[in-house]
Amino acid sequence: MRVARELARRFAENAVERDRLGGTPKAERDALRDSGLLRMSIPRAYGGYGANWQETLEVVRVLARVDGSIAHLFSFQHLMLATVRLFSRPDQWEPWYEHTARRNWFWGNALNPLDERLVATPQDGWHEFSGIKSFCSGALDSEMLIVSARSRDTSAMLIAALPTQRSGVKTLQDWDNIGQRQTDSGSVTFEKVRVEDDEILADPGPLSSPFACLRPLIGQLCLIAIYLGIVEGAFDEARRYTRTEARPWFRSGVERVEHDPYVLLRYGEFWLALESGRALFERAVDALDAAWRKGEALDHAERGELALAIAAAKAVVSRGGLDLCTRMFEVAGARATHSALALDRYWRNLRTHTLHDPLDYKLREMGEWALVGTYPEPSFYS
Amino acid sequence: MRVARELARRFAENAVERDRLGGTPKAERDALRDSGLLRMSIPRAYGGYGANWQETLEVVRVLARVDGSIAHLFSFQHLMLATVRLFSRPDQWEPWYEHTARRNWFWGNALNPLDERLVATPQDGWHEFSGIKSFCSGALDSEMLIVSARSRDTSAMLIAALPTQRSGVKTLQDWDNIGQRQTDSGSVTFEKVRVEDDEILADPGPLSSPFACLRPLIGQLCLIAIYLGIVEGAFDEARRYTRTEARPWFRSGVERVEHDPYVLLRYGEFWLALESGRALFERAVDALDAAWRKGEALDHAERGELALAIAAAKAVVSRGGLDLCTRMFEVAGARATHSALALDRYWRNLRTHTLHDPLDYKLREMGEWALVGTYPEPSFYS
Amino acid sequence: MRVARELARRFAENAVERDRLGGTPKAERDALRDSGLLRMSIPRAYGGYGANWQETLEVVRVLARVDGSIAHLFSFQHLMLATVRLFSRPDQWEPWYEHTARRNWFWGNALNPLDERLVATPQDGWHEFSGIKSFCSGALDSEMLIVSARSRDTSAMLIAALPTQRSGVKTLQDWDNIGQRQTDSGSVTFEKVRVEDDEILADPGPLSSPFACLRPLIGQLCLIAIYLGIVEGAFDEARRYTRTEARPWFRSGVERVEHDPYVLLRYGEFWLALESGRALFERAVDALDAAWRKGEALDHAERGELALAIAAAKAVVSRGGLDLCTRMFEVAGARATHSALALDRYWRNLRTHTLHDPLDYKLREMGEWALVGTYPEPSFYS
Amino acid sequence: MRVARELARRFAENAVERDRLGGTPKAERDALRDSGLLRMSIPRAYGGYGANWQETLEVVRVLARVDGSIAHLFSFQHLMLATVRLFSRPDQWEPWYEHTARRNWFWGNALNPLDERLVATPQDGWHEFSGIKSFCSGALDSEMLIVSARSRDTSAMLIAALPTQRSGVKTLQDWDNIGQRQTDSGSVTFEKVRVEDDEILADPGPLSSPFACLRPLIGQLCLIAIYLGIVEGAFDEARRYTRTEARPWFRSGVERVEHDPYVLLRYGEFWLALESGRALFERAVDALDAAWRKGEALDHAERGELALAIAAAKAVVSRGGLDLCTRMFEVAGARATHSALALDRYWRNLRTHTLHDPLDYKLREMGEWALVGTYPEPSFYS
Repeated sequence: MRVARELARRFAENAVERDRLGGTPKAERDALRDSGLLRMSIPRAYGGYGANWQETLEVVRVLARVDGSIAHLFSFQHLMLATVRLFSRPDQWEPWYEHTARRNWFWGNALNPLDERLVATPQDGWHEFSGIKSFCSGALDSEMLIVSARSRDTSAMLIAALPTQRSGVKTLQDWDNIGQRQTDSGSVTFEKVRVEDDEILADPGPLSSPFACLRPLIGQLCLIAIYLGIVEGAFDEARRYTRTEARPWFRSGVERVEHDPYVLLRYGEFWLALESGRALFERAVDALDAAWRKGEALDHAERGELALAIAAAKAVVSRGGLDLCTRMFEVAGARATHSALALDRYWRNLRTHTLHDPLDYKLREMGEWALVGTYPEPSFYS
Repeated sequence: MRVARELARRFAENAVERDRLGGTPKAERDALRDSGLLRMSIPRAYGGYGANWQETLEVVRVLARVDGSIAHLFSFQHLMLATVRLFSRPDQWEPWYEHTARRNWFWGNALNPLDERLVATPQDGWHEFSGIKSFCSGALDSEMLIVSARSRDTSAMLIAALPTQRSGVKTLQDWDNIGQRQTDSGSVTFEKVRVEDDEILADPGPLSSPFACLRPLIGQLCLIAIYLGIVEGAFDEARRYTRTEARPWFRSGVERVEHDPYVLLRYGEFWLALESGRALFERAVDALDAAWRKGEALDHAERGELALAIAAAKAVVSRGGLDLCTRMFEVAGARATHSALALDRYWRNLRTHTLHDPLDYKLREMGEWALVGTYPEPSFYS
Repeated sequence: MRVARELARRFAENAVERDRLGGTPKAERDALRDSGLLRMSIPRAYGGYGANWQETLEVVRVLARVDGSIAHLFSFQHLMLATVRLFSRPDQWEPWYEHTARRNWFWGNALNPLDERLVATPQDGWHEFSGIKSFCSGALDSEMLIVSARSRDTSAMLIAALPTQRSGVKTLQDWDNIGQRQTDSGSVTFEKVRVEDDEILADPGPLSSPFACLRPLIGQLCLIAIYLGIVEGAFDEARRYTRTEARPWFRSGVERVEHDPYVLLRYGEFWLALESGRALFERAVDALDAAWRKGEALDHAERGELALAIAAAKAVVSRGGLDLCTRMFEVAGARATHSALALDRYWRNLRTHTLHDPLDYKLREMGEWALVGTYPEPSFYS
Repeated sequence: MRVARELARRFAENAVERDRLGGTPKAERDALRDSGLLRMSIPRAYGGYGANWQETLEVVRVLARVDGSIAHLFSFQHLMLATVRLFSRPDQWEPWYEHTARRNWFWGNALNPLDERLVATPQDGWHEFSGIKSFCSGALDSEMLIVSARSRDTSAMLIAALPTQRSGVKTLQDWDNIGQRQTDSGSVTFEKVRVEDDEILADPGPLSSPFACLRPLIGQLCLIAIYLGIVEGAFDEARRYTRTEARPWFRSGVERVEHDPYVLLRYGEFWLALESGRALFERAVDALDAAWRKGEALDHAERGELALAIAAAKAVVSRGGLDLCTRMFEVAGARATHSALALDRYWRNLRTHTLHDPLDYKLREMGEWALVGTYPEPSFYS
């Protein structure tokens, strides 16, 4: 955690500049490699630090306070590691864990399950992957990729782990969006890429048991940790600006802005939003760690309870956060819109990232539980 | 807890009727006496059950789901017991605890600190209390009363514990309000009432240390437990009604109301409100138990953190609850307004009770913490 | 309008008492008969006052400020008169208008289109109506009824106007609900009631043209006028109570409650809610008068625009109003919950009446217009 | 209006590119000069088009739909013209009007009343202005400036109109903010600038009568027209994107996104926000035109009513608008965050501009009216 805080301090220095530039945060990615934190969630037996989810996601949150993009890349590292752990055989994931721990591999994502343009054609002992994937966060400058493809034969989803350098794989620099600008969430093209059967995560396979179904929930909690960190970062900057720069409104009748009753009310609302989000997030993270510890003994209902806890956290953090990132300017004042401060990046980052999957359907899932008593049906989004 | 659930089941049977009648729930008060639950928070050493706050407030919440008034009376029992524990000497509170445990005394409240009409005139070894107190929940049919008075000499607040039967004390049946109708929160008059010095809670006295300052926080958590229970009760009834009585809207295109996307969305919102409230409430209760265990070692900052946790819980439960108690009809339909169901009693109970102290000032306190870093100043409301 | 204000002043005197009693407001209904206002929307040519909808709904609103039930009954009088005008031949409605104007007939409602239990069996030159209707506001103590029934043959909806005294018609006193308690919105039973063909509103018939489709829109605007009046009444009482009874919070630092910054903020929010509702309501009423003047020349698009204007007014008035009727207590204080004031009747009346049809489907209609450009499909609710 | 629509069409073509660049929209300013619209609010007697406020603000709104910055500059042109009309003698403003109409002068703003760094030292028949002003929208590339300064002697506020080319006046290119990026709202420095007494707007002078007090209200309505236009532009783009690009969520069960019940609900909410804003805005504009026509006969109460109508419109448009500009992405989807679309500019423009003066104090003013019955005290912000 000390290491994480030190990295965060360093990333903060040029976060505004890097937000402006977009592109790949190469120096910061290398700093993460050097820090050893890329292996923090890997068990000690495989050379990692054996951190639980609470610890790992705490680092995500610390990073997100200063840089949503870096936090995104870092969290996906551990999501990818969890993916191979949950979907493949020990003789597959154990070597990957060891290599990652030893060589500080950075894992990238090419798994977008809603983009069906990548097709896997079965061959003798291997598949040929051809097509394109969008929203591939962290694929650029990665050592390993997790890729999903639609089987030409069965149209089932195949998920594979392969080296990013594999012949035929090309990571495009086509991510230029309004937020999360250094996540390289662009496209990856696959041209007749050979994927060995041993690289396919088929045993036990995707979403094959309640335990394997933790994967999307870990993904959701990674998102929430990032959201929460972004919002906490926004709050910190708002407070700093209010205290050092803001002036009381001429009709307020107070000498210092800290005495303005409405400014205090708004900060009270901000605090309430943060606390609500934190309470639900922390409860969900604890539940994830408990579920993770259960392993294959985890049952459908336990997984369902966790999914509901995560859905609630996501809704509260997203909504409260967007509100805070918009209203933070109201307690800072018009001068806080200066481009050099780039205070809009909190809203841009959060707004971009909270579009990952629609909140109304999360509410519907909670409603189905509340009214009918059915758990969310596992998918890559629930 | 089993006892509590059994009582709740029984109180539910005529809760609607008793809401209509108002007045003193004599049979239910006696059932509480008989249940032994009046001594649940008293340590085993004094004949009680030694329940912690988590357990005690859980019973409050269980009762509140079916009857906000009974839950109110029950919670104040334990708030009054905490009051003598925190404000008086062991040689004062220990006998009161023992008598309460042995004889199932019910304690009532006459402490409203904002009503200054009751005056204490010092005499030789005793005070004469004369005047009136309003909002004296549970004073009627109680064995003991906690009373606050303004000293005629010093205008300091004196708090005393005395038998309700003391000569000159008169509990009026003047509570007839729109909600919490069986709490007997009416007036008590004192006509030249003799209060012995040994009945004054002066050592260490009210709000005399961070530990003693837990008293108003316990009071706030009692309120929140009641609010939350009321809201959970409302939710339960809404669900039951929707599932058994409601019909899909003719333009919905669905066969069963459980498939209406908007009904599900509303239930998702209800669930979110409940979960947010529960997460903050449970966190605050755990923090109270930890603070309580610290005793006089509790410091100002720890007490301040607890106060903030409670303020957040109160705001979220109050707001989300009022919304749920209003909108529950929208998922039940027009026929759910039939008087025989009395579904409006959830809103009436919650609306009445949440007026105890203004939320805007709780938000201001949180804002002062968030912006300036100062803890809420202890008072009988913070 | 002077007459209406005088009636409102008079109805206000015992509105709290009548809310408690429920039942039929016989004296008030007779006062409305005597006032001549039952014929205000009837053209002068037929003995009425020739009021336009702006004037008629203004009286509804004035009455609703003091008594939602009376306003309801009064508005339905004019909705029923519009119904015969829009759905029947001049040789049918002209005599009804003349008799109503001359004899101060009160019209009641038995048209609930969602209750299909009333069946019309065709006979030779007449129909036999048998069955029951629910939610028949104002049927009790009325001279005339508008009744809808399902034809046994065609299962089409037939609407008829007939004397309430017709043999076989029985108005039940079974309305005992939490709000709008004196609207007699209970059931009417029909036992082999003979309805002449000349009493059937079949030419041009229900919803037969854009002009005829104004009927449900008039109904919706009647509701909105009542809602708005109720909310304005709540606001008036809140203001009166705050100014005469409320005391500043002990931590507010102000001498008078009128200087509390949060109380002023809440009143600002109330005002905003009222003004938003009024602006949309008044715009919609003007549009209705314009549409009404067009008569059969009104086209589908014009009717659609009006429907959208009404939907927007309904949503804003309903939501803002429920919020105001809940939060009015926060600026009045705990003592404002005394039963004698019955300030909860605003919430109870508004809550009950706003359940007439679900707001989410109104929002969906607006969404279909906003996104796709289609007008709300005319029905008895749109 | 046809001219305005044609200009808007043209400005839309490179609005995204110009948002990126910031700086002075020289070509667009010249297009406005050539269009003749800079004189539209000047009476025909002085060579203008004699447009009323409804017409002038309609052009503002049309421009704001595609470019908030241009709309800002254009609206301030007419605000500045109103300023000289209201604060100076006819022999002052008449020639200014004539020259503006004949030569298409563009007026800029250097009036920020809260920035007191510009000082006017009285001389013989003139004043020397020295210092700096911030937030000087449209000063760059303008022919005339309205400047406010604090008198060194009396510390009263002096307002003057002078040519931007006057010796010693320097417009800085220091506006680089997150929104309204082409408004050139940077600083203007004054170094021993000679301002003739005839250039001072002292008779009748600033805020000298209810009629003169219309100036800040016109300013507020200019802001609201811009806000509303921005929000309408955001809505138009959201709709276009949803209809042409968005895909239904995989769990929605619908074929086309236009059938998703939650997307329709969100569009319904958007529509409601727009309609609420429009109804209040249009009502306020009509009231302004009526007040303007009254001229010096306008009294304090009439001015007060107008101020309240404007305050309500501002609150509703600001809040609803920020929400729409945030949530528009939720109906468009993650791909709508592509930088090339720059859909975030609606939020950035609105967020920046709505910080002009704090909404909480507008709510307080409405609250003072609602509770106590006092009108907003005229100032440059109310």
